[in-house]
Amino acid sequence: MDTIGIGLLGFGTVGRGVYRVLQQNRELITNRLGATVEVRKVLVRDPEKDRGIEVPPDLFTADPAAILTDPAVQIVVEVVGGIEAARRYVVEALTRGKSVVTANKDLLAAHGQELFAAAAATGADLFFEASVAGGIPIIKILKEALAGNRIIEVMGIVNGTTNYILTKMSEEGAAFETVLQEAQAKGYAEADPTSDVAGLDAARKIAILASIAFNSRIKLEDVYVEGITRVTPADIRYARELGYVVKLLGIARETPEGIEVRVHPALVPVAHPLAAVRDVFNAVFVRGDAVGDTMFYGRGAGELPTASAVVGDIIAAARNIRYQMRGTTGCTCFETKRVKPITAVETSYYLRLRVTDRPGVLAGIAAAFGNNMVSLAAVIQKTTGEIAELVLVTHRVREANLRAAVEELRRLPTVEAVANIIRVEEWYGG
Amino acid sequence: MDTIGIGLLGFGTVGRGVYRVLQQNRELITNRLGATVEVRKVLVRDPEKDRGIEVPPDLFTADPAAILTDPAVQIVVEVVGGIEAARRYVVEALTRGKSVVTANKDLLAAHGQELFAAAAATGADLFFEASVAGGIPIIKILKEALAGNRIIEVMGIVNGTTNYILTKMSEEGAAFETVLQEAQAKGYAEADPTSDVAGLDAARKIAILASIAFNSRIKLEDVYVEGITRVTPADIRYARELGYVVKLLGIARETPEGIEVRVHPALVPVAHPLAAVRDVFNAVFVRGDAVGDTMFYGRGAGELPTASAVVGDIIAAARNIRYQMRGTTGCTCFETKRVKPITAVETSYYLRLRVTDRPGVLAGIAAAFGNNMVSLAAVIQKTTGEIAELVLVTHRVREANLRAAVEELRRLPTVEAVANIIRVEEWYGG
Repeated sequence: MDTIGIGLLGFGTVGRGVYRVLQQNRELITNRLGATVEVRKVLVRDPEKDRGIEVPPDLFTADPAAILTDPAVQIVVEVVGGIEAARRYVVEALTRGKSVVTANKDLLAAHGQELFAAAAATGADLFFEASVAGGIPIIKILKEALAGNRIIEVMGIVNGTTNYILTKMSEEGAAFETVLQEAQAKGYAEADPTSDVAGLDAARKIAILASIAFNSRIKLEDVYVEGITRVTPADIRYARELGYVVKLLGIARETPEGIEVRVHPALVPVAHPLAAVRDVFNAVFVRGDAVGDTMFYGRGAGELPTASAVVGDIIAAARNIRYQMRGTTGCTCFETKRVKPITAVETSYYLRLRVTDRPGVLAGIAAAFGNNMVSLAAVIQKTTGEIAELVLVTHRVREANLRAAVEELRRLPTVEAVANIIRVEEWYGG
Repeated sequence: MDTIGIGLLGFGTVGRGVYRVLQQNRELITNRLGATVEVRKVLVRDPEKDRGIEVPPDLFTADPAAILTDPAVQIVVEVVGGIEAARRYVVEALTRGKSVVTANKDLLAAHGQELFAAAAATGADLFFEASVAGGIPIIKILKEALAGNRIIEVMGIVNGTTNYILTKMSEEGAAFETVLQEAQAKGYAEADPTSDVAGLDAARKIAILASIAFNSRIKLEDVYVEGITRVTPADIRYARELGYVVKLLGIARETPEGIEVRVHPALVPVAHPLAAVRDVFNAVFVRGDAVGDTMFYGRGAGELPTASAVVGDIIAAARNIRYQMRGTTGCTCFETKRVKPITAVETSYYLRLRVTDRPGVLAGIAAAFGNNMVSLAAVIQKTTGEIAELVLVTHRVREANLRAAVEELRRLPTVEAVANIIRVEEWYGG
């Protein structure tokens, strides 16, 4: 029976999870793979530290070379996080012909091209399932299971923290700041929550998914990003009244004018499969020209769900080593496609305005939309005293036109404020 | 550039879909695979028939040997359906060392063991993604992506016809027979709908999924099966009042006392991800010890969704041929596990009784439950004239106890009828 040696770089939450899963399912994995996977070394800063998990102490090393140069380590698992050290380790491992499994989306976003080139040079495998949507095997699904499809769109709830916040805001009517503090107390949000709530984490993930789906390298800079900080309980309430829920979506769509790739809050129809995705769960909705509408749901983070993805990759890498068939699914960016600017995107919009409650107000507003070829699908008006809140949903229109209409609205004396604008993702499928 | 030759056995709905997808995405597939996939021959009964799709006429043959013995055909795609001829073709193809892709769950259920043995003998690949849940790549997910997990349960809506019927019954309040006729008119249900509505189609699929999930051969005879014919609009209404929807589920679960594997209507909490799966859509919910709760959603049937799965398998088989790495994921039934009888299953139950509206009725009924250690979680009573309808939901209990309680109920003079009993699948996850 073959034994395949693993070197773990890092022993934080994910590293410990990987070690645990490999131990607890050792026999099962051996039977499924037809080979044994053995952790040979674990890179940590302080090998003496007590980690509250039973690991033979001689497994720990503080010397990366003890892993990267050991011929008995065939698969290097990078779960050290960060960018610079991780990059050096991964490039060295690949250059030495070792297969690499990483969970590091920041590394891929920053240096993906270099890493894939290093892998291609030695024919080593580079797998990264855990970098997007934790336990959901969306990368394998896109690269392999749906490989017969031209992918039309990928739309995902790929950040658990913001989905938790929006779920709580929606179900408890609480304000963003209140729920954020609660999420921080529970450990669902970081002390500095910017990367999550500003949409950057989701943007990195949708860039990876878009690159795979459309076979063209999409970089973080290509992604239009808006976070959830401006979403209010009022917006969520109006959305529900109109038949929608508010979700932070990563959206990637191929259109004849180029690829749309964006992260922003969006109104999603309650009947859409993504609307039912609550709490910290993630889900990725994929539309293919053959398969139609599909959705893949699960936990996007956490020790064991992330470890599930890493161990799945380890098993795939080990199988390829065992059968001497590595490097068969490398970088799939064989095309170069144009990315559409956000102003060229066509979608529907939800707008919440504060207006003076006076005759003729609506006529002026309607004219501002009409002048810019924006037509309206729904209007709600709520009046309190002299000020009315006006909520509008447009039909599908080019964002440039919507922006021009909003400029006109802002100049109207009857419009006190354009309080919020949120894009609407209609669902025509089913 | 390599070219890999395909022989299509059958040119019905799925066969045409496979041909269409391979043509329309030819360049994309070539780029993703690094090789060209070429349909060399198509087996049909009448090569002269006009099929309303552009295919070079010399591709058609009525002679299976023209495909099975052609060295230029490396992958045989069996979409001819039925069992006997399909079995002969598949065994011959595998014996000649050709990889086989099949969409035929009946064939697998009846002769899976023989086919896997034939594949193992020559090291050929045998793929069957399309046999379960159409476009949802659940087999690849279970065999590969989640291979690091001990699977705890698989629970699926794997029959589109019955999900369509239950959705319509639920949303329109219509009776089973009415909706069935409508489904037949739309082509969603067969003229003889028995296999679907009696749960047999779902049973074949859950047997395949259970075998893969638990690495033990589960046969159709192992599956406890109840169909949806006894579900009434009243049951669906009461279920909604109690916070559930009614779905036909295939359930496979590993417990310390053996494997549970069953198909029956079930009450599912509205917050469960499966509850939102409407219409002809399928979804498979999988709980793994590492990944936690996941769900995979999509179309379970139809020309192009099924073709998506078949073409995904063709690409995988072609990649393995190209890299000379076939036979790496054969039969995974390396264990032999006991299947639990249905009477040993523990779950909750919904019961609808017709009772005489008389003092003391509930006391007698409660005693029948209490005598058999069945405790109640919810009771609804609706009275019309002399007869009351009593709806009960039990706590978790062994089915044998529930059955004994029902026997006692039937002997009570105040109980006119036990009108229906439906199992309840609670969801503790989230």
